[in-house]
Amino acid sequence: MLAQTGYHAGTSKGNAPMSNRQVRLASRPGGIPQAEHFAIVEVPEPEPDDGQILVRNRFLSVEPAMRGWVSTVANYAQPVGIGEVMRSFAAGDVIESRHPDFAPGDRVVGMFGWQTHAVVGSAAITRKVTEDDLPLSAALHVLGLTGLTAYFGLLDIGQPEEGDTVVVSTAAGSVGSFVGQIARTRNCRTVGITGGPEKAELCRTRFGYDAAIDYKSTPDLDAALGAAAPRGVNVYFDNTSGRISDVVLRHLAVGARVVICGTVSQPTWDPWPTGPRVERHLLVRRARMQGFVVLDFEHRFDEAIAQLAHWVRQDRLRYEEEILDGIEQAPDAIARLYRGENMGKLLVRV
Amino acid sequence: MLAQTGYHAGTSKGNAPMSNRQVRLASRPGGIPQAEHFAIVEVPEPEPDDGQILVRNRFLSVEPAMRGWVSTVANYAQPVGIGEVMRSFAAGDVIESRHPDFAPGDRVVGMFGWQTHAVVGSAAITRKVTEDDLPLSAALHVLGLTGLTAYFGLLDIGQPEEGDTVVVSTAAGSVGSFVGQIARTRNCRTVGITGGPEKAELCRTRFGYDAAIDYKSTPDLDAALGAAAPRGVNVYFDNTSGRISDVVLRHLAVGARVVICGTVSQPTWDPWPTGPRVERHLLVRRARMQGFVVLDFEHRFDEAIAQLAHWVRQDRLRYEEEILDGIEQAPDAIARLYRGENMGKLLVRV
Repeated sequence: MLAQTGYHAGTSKGNAPMSNRQVRLASRPGGIPQAEHFAIVEVPEPEPDDGQILVRNRFLSVEPAMRGWVSTVANYAQPVGIGEVMRSFAAGDVIESRHPDFAPGDRVVGMFGWQTHAVVGSAAITRKVTEDDLPLSAALHVLGLTGLTAYFGLLDIGQPEEGDTVVVSTAAGSVGSFVGQIARTRNCRTVGITGGPEKAELCRTRFGYDAAIDYKSTPDLDAALGAAAPRGVNVYFDNTSGRISDVVLRHLAVGARVVICGTVSQPTWDPWPTGPRVERHLLVRRARMQGFVVLDFEHRFDEAIAQLAHWVRQDRLRYEEEILDGIEQAPDAIARLYRGENMGKLLVRV
Repeated sequence: MLAQTGYHAGTSKGNAPMSNRQVRLASRPGGIPQAEHFAIVEVPEPEPDDGQILVRNRFLSVEPAMRGWVSTVANYAQPVGIGEVMRSFAAGDVIESRHPDFAPGDRVVGMFGWQTHAVVGSAAITRKVTEDDLPLSAALHVLGLTGLTAYFGLLDIGQPEEGDTVVVSTAAGSVGSFVGQIARTRNCRTVGITGGPEKAELCRTRFGYDAAIDYKSTPDLDAALGAAAPRGVNVYFDNTSGRISDVVLRHLAVGARVVICGTVSQPTWDPWPTGPRVERHLLVRRARMQGFVVLDFEHRFDEAIAQLAHWVRQDRLRYEEEILDGIEQAPDAIARLYRGENMGKLLVRV
């Protein structure tokens, strides 16, 4: 028998094997995944092979993209199979390692799935979490893909300059809330567009937006935006691709940059939706519209995470998270997200 | 009496004053200006004041924008008044100068109007034409705004790289024909989209396009473009903003650049036209769409004209012009342009 938690420990851990609780996809949802589409099962704790680590997950991520991951409609990735553990980012502690780069006690984040214990190799490990002074959960949002998306989308694609007016749609959301705050570090004026009075209030008080517009209660979005951005919009960070964008494009300043990050207001692209043509806006304002995918910036993730962590420590980059306790909360969590009940990043603590 | 053509000559030119023939706007057209909206008058030759030059025009320009210049509908510039000389670019010889930078014999281009003789100051003079080995008329197209528009739009906004596929709408037109040829100097594959078999043939044989598509006779533009650009479109230079663009955007390669130069397929922007939304194309392809106005590059015009002239001398940049002889041809010339009867830049020789 090898030591239970020794460095490069072997495959057995003594006489009292732990169990692994998993959330598996039980049936294929037609639309938004509900609790009934998942099943919780208990299996023996897995054991790592050479080149693998055993991770004790602490936080499981819940995100909108999961709807696509369990759908057979064409997407970026293969769908999760029936009976498989639900695909998910998670953060946890290494408790056993047969990989030379990791040791028990290391904190890691990666594609570990909705389960308490995961055995994974390099391909599934996003990174070792070295910001020991910050909560581990931050690796799943502000120091993870949503923080990185805001960072590269705003700074590299939007290229804000001091004094610019930066407008963000879904301003209280998991990406938008960071975009507004990063724009403030560049001394920009920030205007957030969001749905509902609580989210508008959160934009102003917690995320430091200079102005926040609740598009659901504003009778004239065009007039409200004109008042909030009187010198025009220099950078527009868009997550919506719908009527909000159509209004914002009418307010572009000369030389404006429009960052296309997402299209959440479009329920489907089949049939392809139509809208006001953008060419004349771009021509008259000498403006630019550009899409991006954060994974294209992977070679610069370390640099960005260091900067994001620095801003978090300075309290210049705040995040909201809503933590559900216990893996039995996971099956309903995606539906909860789509019901819009959460404020901030939704996580399950296990 | 002063010498008739002496340097810095005075205000009188002997006993036989020349006359100036002018084309004046006689009435306000409702749509496209026709011959009946103009009147030809003969007046005494004008005399320059201090700081002015007297130009004997040789070529008058005819261009689509003139429709806007005589319209009271909101536009970039004040409309031409009834009874005023028709606004126009022209190229000619200085025959008298009271401006320190110009001397008789200099060739100049500028806003000299539809007339045989013009007295103008610095504000109306675009530049002295110093390419003495090239035809003066070139200053009104390939070494003028259309050449410059192609140059900056393609190279600065489109940023083509060797091996890229560059697609041009209105490929046989006054700007598009140059775009295709400049792209070839960067070793790009060029695909022209144009209307009619003669123009498609001109694209292939005269402007060196690797492929030309006659959108009017092609039953399936999507399939034709897929065959002509099998690796996708890296740069799309667009002058149309209509159904041609909607097709091309479906063929963008990852990282594509779309240059918005004009919107000629849209007869009006009131009401604002709609079309398929572009955001998803830009997102999935990490592509960029950008408008520009050539006058923003004025500080680099000299550099660009020198390069364009170099390519003309090397026969790498060819142009087509259609020259109407006699100022009496001018009144019908705008209508002729809109009837699509011309091949190449339309000019009036006076």
